[in-house]
Amino acid sequence: MQSPYPALTAEEAAALIRHDQVIGFSGFTPAGAAKVIPPAIAAKARLEHAAGRDFKVGVITGASTGPSLDGELARADAIKFRTPYQSDKDLRASINAGRTQFFDMHLSLLPQYVRYGFLGELDWAIVEAADVSADGKILLTTSVGASPTFLSQAHKILIEVNRHHPKELLGFHDIYELKNPPNRRPIPLVNPEDRIGTQRVWVDPKKIVGIVASNHPDEVRNFTLLNDNTRKIGQNVAGFLAAELKSGRIPKSFLPIQSGVGNVANAVLGALGEHPDIPRFQMYSEVIQDSVIDLLKADRVSFVSGVSLTLTHPVLRDIYTNLEDYQGRLLLRPQEIANNPEIIRRLGIISINTALEADIFGNVNSTHVLGQAMMNGIGGSGDFTRNAYISIFTCPSTAKDGNISAIVPMCSHIDHSEHSVQVLVTEHGVADLRGKAPRERAALVIGNCVDPSYRDLLQTYFKLTENGHTPQSFRSAFAFHEKFLETGNMLDATF
Amino acid sequence: MQSPYPALTAEEAAALIRHDQVIGFSGFTPAGAAKVIPPAIAAKARLEHAAGRDFKVGVITGASTGPSLDGELARADAIKFRTPYQSDKDLRASINAGRTQFFDMHLSLLPQYVRYGFLGELDWAIVEAADVSADGKILLTTSVGASPTFLSQAHKILIEVNRHHPKELLGFHDIYELKNPPNRRPIPLVNPEDRIGTQRVWVDPKKIVGIVASNHPDEVRNFTLLNDNTRKIGQNVAGFLAAELKSGRIPKSFLPIQSGVGNVANAVLGALGEHPDIPRFQMYSEVIQDSVIDLLKADRVSFVSGVSLTLTHPVLRDIYTNLEDYQGRLLLRPQEIANNPEIIRRLGIISINTALEADIFGNVNSTHVLGQAMMNGIGGSGDFTRNAYISIFTCPSTAKDGNISAIVPMCSHIDHSEHSVQVLVTEHGVADLRGKAPRERAALVIGNCVDPSYRDLLQTYFKLTENGHTPQSFRSAFAFHEKFLETGNMLDATF
Repeated sequence: MQSPYPALTAEEAAALIRHDQVIGFSGFTPAGAAKVIPPAIAAKARLEHAAGRDFKVGVITGASTGPSLDGELARADAIKFRTPYQSDKDLRASINAGRTQFFDMHLSLLPQYVRYGFLGELDWAIVEAADVSADGKILLTTSVGASPTFLSQAHKILIEVNRHHPKELLGFHDIYELKNPPNRRPIPLVNPEDRIGTQRVWVDPKKIVGIVASNHPDEVRNFTLLNDNTRKIGQNVAGFLAAELKSGRIPKSFLPIQSGVGNVANAVLGALGEHPDIPRFQMYSEVIQDSVIDLLKADRVSFVSGVSLTLTHPVLRDIYTNLEDYQGRLLLRPQEIANNPEIIRRLGIISINTALEADIFGNVNSTHVLGQAMMNGIGGSGDFTRNAYISIFTCPSTAKDGNISAIVPMCSHIDHSEHSVQVLVTEHGVADLRGKAPRERAALVIGNCVDPSYRDLLQTYFKLTENGHTPQSFRSAFAFHEKFLETGNMLDATF
Repeated sequence: MQSPYPALTAEEAAALIRHDQVIGFSGFTPAGAAKVIPPAIAAKARLEHAAGRDFKVGVITGASTGPSLDGELARADAIKFRTPYQSDKDLRASINAGRTQFFDMHLSLLPQYVRYGFLGELDWAIVEAADVSADGKILLTTSVGASPTFLSQAHKILIEVNRHHPKELLGFHDIYELKNPPNRRPIPLVNPEDRIGTQRVWVDPKKIVGIVASNHPDEVRNFTLLNDNTRKIGQNVAGFLAAELKSGRIPKSFLPIQSGVGNVANAVLGALGEHPDIPRFQMYSEVIQDSVIDLLKADRVSFVSGVSLTLTHPVLRDIYTNLEDYQGRLLLRPQEIANNPEIIRRLGIISINTALEADIFGNVNSTHVLGQAMMNGIGGSGDFTRNAYISIFTCPSTAKDGNISAIVPMCSHIDHSEHSVQVLVTEHGVADLRGKAPRERAALVIGNCVDPSYRDLLQTYFKLTENGHTPQSFRSAFAFHEKFLETGNMLDATF
């Protein structure tokens, strides 16, 4: 059948975008991100700027994207505001210099923020697809993210049909969009494997302004290899969960796992897969990395639900050549469903996320380096952590060859308060903070998780002031950070 | 019909309680709190201590209670640990001195923490009731709180049958207990008025060890009267919501309101009731105070769902003499349902809570005075705020005759991160922080909400360091707090 949509070049598509418009781009990690129109918009921005004209657009995505989107647009200084998450070095620099206004938010909230009109009108949805039917049914690729909402809310739609992704992806997505209050109803999902929606996103075909053909792989990078510390963290998490299972505080059938992104997350999944006392389990997670596919193949994970297939090229190629092996075992959902508090609390998810920094009272910083510089954003960590059956945060106890302690007297920025952090795990051990008062938590964190080189220092800080429910010293709360800025080593801190 | 349960005196009941046991008491605010057995336990504790024996118990409640519970037990030094919330001055002193281990938590999580076994075994439920049937159906009184869970989970039950409360309360409660994962199902509530459970709590009558008769009113105190500042805060909130309604960002039918506790909350409700552009509305809230009853009577509120009827004596007496007027307009629920993220997000609640302290970037401290001393606890503020359609925090811009600015460079304790705080309101104005980066937020908060006497100081702090996504100075972040401790006036702060 003839496509009813105009075929455009990326440049023709970019020519349609005007200064100050707001765009919702597909992409949740580099997986499924728009890849050919964004560089053309960046090129247009450069020409406009060279001609002395303003050209910046509001950029909304599912989460982070690839270098062709955030990187290109940031280097062209074409981003007016950005939300909800990013991980690009050039965009990060622009944000931290105050050139790009970045609004960090819980990923589950982004779609409803758009639908409620809190981010203004959405002029465009620019979405990568594996296929588009004449009646407006869009087959997404390796991520769902917030694309269903962008497609339903945007005034106009541009589609990148990327033939790198096979049309046989049909059946790997479960598209369900929430209604706005007062018309919202219970989300009918009671098991990670449940299908509640459609296989494709249905849009009004009249909104589709054009199609740009492309053939580009996802821009997913390899993660760094595991080391002894990350392996120990993984083993500590697995050991803790096995003990909870044995005690009966986790049901015998086990509970679905959510695991964050990065090499600590990979180590944790590896350790769960290897632990003899942990049964075959389901995952109800967000980003699906290579390590999850390993566990699916080994039949240690029976089913995985997520928002994106963020896989390295060989692993994704292998899946694409054996797609039938994964039907019924792997499902991609909108971030509004994957990260939804309703579902996370109902299913009893065990959440495992990485802390950038934690303090002795169990608060966690997930976003800011030394309290000021945005790293990536809070992502889905808050959605999962707050609503988990058991919420676990992991981190190596030190960074920069021991010059930084990841555990400090007071976090330099707090994204997850003491109320949300149930268990803290480093390579040294586990602090189970459930039901513990702040002074008890400090003793557990210092005793079990802190690197031995920092234990005395943190103990000294804690003893400085024994006043109050949460003993703190305003003068010394940031002594670790101040000393690091001064000498490059937190071990030099004095109180 | 003859009661099948042994009639006990309070002292006989207290004699059954042993050192180190854990008790779940009814009470969510002083409303419906156990009132006669706790003082008898306190008396027993004093006798045991005088005899040189240890006697302390774990005390779990719905939220705060009355002086006969927290006050008596704290003064007798009989509390080993306490969760999830309190507001008693003697207990507060014990917590801040480190004598009582207090675990502050989101109120919606308390029941599942008990069911999951995270707080250990629950030896006793001690619950106030208006009636108990021979087959174990318990009619609760002015609060539901966590009592259904205490009654289902405790090994043994003691009931205070308080004839101050009429048996005609039957029909004012909706009792629904969640199953644990993996057996939890969607909560079938789609409108604040929906009934989803039973009118009474059903227990195994064999667990009821005895009944203590009582006749005591709830120990609810009057709140302080409104002043010009609280009235202005109320008007600012009402004006903001009316403008949102006009803009179409709130649906025409309006949305259910949650309002916190205290005189600012009373002022806000009063202002919503008086505003000509705000339609008659429903409330899906937690603590129902006198001001809500005024709005029900004036037919400005059509229906209110809450956890407790925390009313002054004349108002409760008036309700009890006209109960039929309130049937179908007023319903009490377990805190696990009233505060549930699933329901709050589904219904699209507009949450209005009070901040103890806020910072220029939109973080909020709800719990700690000067970062160290626990005031009451986070209560339900986090449950509502995180999941609200629009979350609003209110506070008077200053305290202690202007010597304290409620808005500081950095909160001394963070309970609600920037991600959860959408709108900040003081008597001076409204800062709408939705979609705004930290630097933009700081400009709005300083410009619209800060007291004029503190504006230059906060502007100076903000200009100190223009580095990073969130400009902060480790050296000066707590300059306001340090100066207050030194001179008694934050206006003396220098950077």
